[in-house]
Amino acid sequence: MATKTEIRRQELRDKLILIAERTIAQNGLSALRARDLAAEAGCAVGAIYNVFGDLTDLTLAVNARTFHRLGADVAEALAAAPEDPVEQLVVMAQAYHHFAASNHLSWRALFDVERPAGEAAPDWYLSEMGQLFTYISDPLAVIFPERGAEELGLLTRALFSSVHGIVLLGLDEASAGVSTDKIDHMIALVLRQFTASRK
Amino acid sequence: MATKTEIRRQELRDKLILIAERTIAQNGLSALRARDLAAEAGCAVGAIYNVFGDLTDLTLAVNARTFHRLGADVAEALAAAPEDPVEQLVVMAQAYHHFAASNHLSWRALFDVERPAGEAAPDWYLSEMGQLFTYISDPLAVIFPERGAEELGLLTRALFSSVHGIVLLGLDEASAGVSTDKIDHMIALVLRQFTASRK
Repeated sequence: MATKTEIRRQELRDKLILIAERTIAQNGLSALRARDLAAEAGCAVGAIYNVFGDLTDLTLAVNARTFHRLGADVAEALAAAPEDPVEQLVVMAQAYHHFAASNHLSWRALFDVERPAGEAAPDWYLSEMGQLFTYISDPLAVIFPERGAEELGLLTRALFSSVHGIVLLGLDEASAGVSTDKIDHMIALVLRQFTASRK
Repeated sequence: MATKTEIRRQELRDKLILIAERTIAQNGLSALRARDLAAEAGCAVGAIYNVFGDLTDLTLAVNARTFHRLGADVAEALAAAPEDPVEQLVVMAQAYHHFAASNHLSWRALFDVERPAGEAAPDWYLSEMGQLFTYISDPLAVIFPERGAEELGLLTRALFSSVHGIVLLGLDEASAGVSTDKIDHMIALVLRQFTASRK
């Protein structure tokens, strides 16, 4: 049975995640400061570090929630997509774009979180990302049945990165007032062209 | 004829650009602070704002030099590339990757420079970027002769963004200790697959 201390610790943890999540969504990762978090949570600054090793750990906990929401959006888009695997890729990539546009700062935090140099993200975090990659590799395996597992893995990463680049630079221009109605078009263009040679 | 004041102003301008360039290359855009710049240039903080409107203007001046160096590297790679337009795209994209890897913080500053919300980059800056895009659109026009100018423009942007995404996420992983020897491979995979359907 959980002790009173354990329960309180878990409550503070949940509270801090919710506060950090809102801070990141509204003002971005750079606005996350221990002193502000402590003030809003009604705890001492030291209590934060008692629950999370550092603010990066807290950010990873927020990012895990963002990955879950993103995954749910992509899954929903996939459920409504045509059976054609190319169209499935297009629909999911456009869902990725729309999620990024509607959750811009939270989405940026997924990639901007600072890790100590030479340190990879924790395993649970990488497996959360890996989950999203299977949405891409499944249709790719149907489109390119002759490719081996390793090449499919590389294709999956390359295609995800491509769509990410289109969305990232497109939304950057959006923040500078440039129209983004072409992002979906570019995504479809690249994915259809990429798969145009299949038998 | 330039007055003494004008000459001194130009000298301070050049000096500040060189100092800012080194600061960004070594410690990144976030390390650029007016007080440190002034101390190193041996001028008052106010003198900086007399020469540049703000630090964003100074950063754009540094970025213009980075674009020039990048352009020179891409042009050099292109000069040594095979005549085949697909291979030209591959060689240039890999040159982009190598420039980004060897000039990581300067390259990041090209995209991380902050603009006031709703404000586009100045025209001279956009034309500097546009210059680089013609390196991509020329071979694309050979590969896809049936596509119109507007669609070629969109394809060019989409392909640049795709390569950028692969390089960005690949180098992010590199900073976390993950191997990047696959970045060139992913670039070639995407570009060759993208153009595989051409007649």
